[in-house]
Amino acid sequence: MAHRFLQACFRQPVDRVPVWMMRQAGRYLPEYRAVRAQHTFLEMCKKPEIATEVTLQPIDILGVDAAILFSDILILPEAMGIELRFRPDHGPEFPTPVRTAADVERLHVPDPRKDVPFVLEAIRRIQDGLRGRVPLIGFAGAPFTVASYMVEGGGSKDYRNIKTMALAEPETFDRLMTKVTDATIAYLNAQIEAGAQAVQLFDTWAGALPEWLYLERVFPHVQRIFAALTRERNGERIATIYFAKGAGQWFSKVVGAGADVLGVDWTLDLGHARTIVGERVALQGNLDPATLLAPPEVIRREVRRVLDSYGDAPGHIFNLGHGITPEVPPAHAKAMIEAVHEFGTRG
Amino acid sequence: MAHRFLQACFRQPVDRVPVWMMRQAGRYLPEYRAVRAQHTFLEMCKKPEIATEVTLQPIDILGVDAAILFSDILILPEAMGIELRFRPDHGPEFPTPVRTAADVERLHVPDPRKDVPFVLEAIRRIQDGLRGRVPLIGFAGAPFTVASYMVEGGGSKDYRNIKTMALAEPETFDRLMTKVTDATIAYLNAQIEAGAQAVQLFDTWAGALPEWLYLERVFPHVQRIFAALTRERNGERIATIYFAKGAGQWFSKVVGAGADVLGVDWTLDLGHARTIVGERVALQGNLDPATLLAPPEVIRREVRRVLDSYGDAPGHIFNLGHGITPEVPPAHAKAMIEAVHEFGTRG
Repeated sequence: MAHRFLQACFRQPVDRVPVWMMRQAGRYLPEYRAVRAQHTFLEMCKKPEIATEVTLQPIDILGVDAAILFSDILILPEAMGIELRFRPDHGPEFPTPVRTAADVERLHVPDPRKDVPFVLEAIRRIQDGLRGRVPLIGFAGAPFTVASYMVEGGGSKDYRNIKTMALAEPETFDRLMTKVTDATIAYLNAQIEAGAQAVQLFDTWAGALPEWLYLERVFPHVQRIFAALTRERNGERIATIYFAKGAGQWFSKVVGAGADVLGVDWTLDLGHARTIVGERVALQGNLDPATLLAPPEVIRREVRRVLDSYGDAPGHIFNLGHGITPEVPPAHAKAMIEAVHEFGTRG
Repeated sequence: MAHRFLQACFRQPVDRVPVWMMRQAGRYLPEYRAVRAQHTFLEMCKKPEIATEVTLQPIDILGVDAAILFSDILILPEAMGIELRFRPDHGPEFPTPVRTAADVERLHVPDPRKDVPFVLEAIRRIQDGLRGRVPLIGFAGAPFTVASYMVEGGGSKDYRNIKTMALAEPETFDRLMTKVTDATIAYLNAQIEAGAQAVQLFDTWAGALPEWLYLERVFPHVQRIFAALTRERNGERIATIYFAKGAGQWFSKVVGAGADVLGVDWTLDLGHARTIVGERVALQGNLDPATLLAPPEVIRREVRRVLDSYGDAPGHIFNLGHGITPEVPPAHAKAMIEAVHEFGTRG
């Protein structure tokens, strides 16, 4: 059976524009919070039955056109050998950050089957639970985004440590990026082998970089990932998505990533983005997540604006321009999805 | 006497590329911290002798090619009638934020001579202290950036309140933007009359907006400001600068702001920016402020990279791509300025 999400990824005609939301298995859902109240965040990532339960919630509750594995981009660097903590009311923390060439050498490239078996088990269980209703998206963080957490020791406002490493110790930086890239390729291919029908690479902090630094020292690693991903499994084509947030100023270059789909954040008009990419890739996005805090009639109007900005051509996956925020009323998320159903009918 | 900073603003040939730094009168300087230890931040803004002292510090200490008035973009909204607080270790706060049409109606458009005389007095004193050594830049926040603080009540991660106002109550939003715009025009023209030889409009949060919202509902106000600014005083041409941070994805539109100079943040390559703007405006920027935390030899190399990215043509003012951060060693700021002197010689 052809799924409209996968059809859109490959720029094939669809009956209506498919829609899912980044962080759709998240805190804005009371059903998610009920599970979260019983488990730590890392437990939820590491217990396949829990990850499965929350991954499936938005499929049943909201009727989105794709499921995305419940996990975290920092599961992979933890498996590379550095301790990861999530403290309540803090972001993620790596108490012993990666700062030196010796720190980088100590990192190992995980074997996903051995080191993160719970992720692959979750994918198999989710597929059992989905029973073919919608495709399942796997994911990983992009090398710079993951490395920035590893080097800064957590979230950062100015990325001072990783930028200093990139400028003052380019060999160490490149060695780290290479290791994270190797790990990411094995990780995503294992997710595909376990049953993911699409994979998304999240480059949340790409936009923190100077253009030259991104293009010369970060983007080649991204390209290597897409060149190395499994593109077919059992005769089924695997869709690949690259989401570089804040990269609108060099979007014409991002087209060369090698992904089937580019995620677009809410700051770059989709029509503008299409002018840049032409027929080369599909586009995913890009309603401003803050819109979901406005009244439903505003949400409906803005959904229409996003659909109109892309136009009628194939190759649009409707999504937010970044993750849904915890304060969004579920009824507002539903209003968005219903509006995509109503205004996104094609053919 | 022709100043190289003003010459560069008007894309005239210079002996060497002029250089100054956003937040150059700031916490990275021990001389600034010594003054700050004796006064609150708002006192420093409101006592002309103190504002003068810290404005002049980087001229004497670093040898930059322009002075910029020590003040804060929130001095103007405070003068519009809402209480402003700076709590230690917090950002700025407006305890009674502007949320409704009635709140907007209560705001008044200040008469700078009556309502912020200390700013104009500081400009006169700074000019006395400068004795023509370098030009003085006045400034204000751009309407969206200022309004976002007024509506959110302080700094914001997601701009939810002002975005909801812009989407759900566009008339209220436009009325607020119009009032801030009117206030800004009077404020900047008063600064010019008092002696500022250039003015910069800081649009720090422009990049938080969807492209259409920026272009349709924010940018016309910016254009109105530049159309209304005094461009000549006593036969001397006044330079105007617009710095929209995070606006690289629609930079081709920003050219139409009406400013002589566009500030460029560190994420958009200057050569790329020049390709977009052609000969229409000068460019100011754009070394990544995080570079100043790296060793001096790295700083020198990156200064050269920025100079090379612009090329030899007239119309480049060297600056950071955003404000200098408090942790930068002054010796590193000096290394940057000396490198601009060394590599930026022209003609």
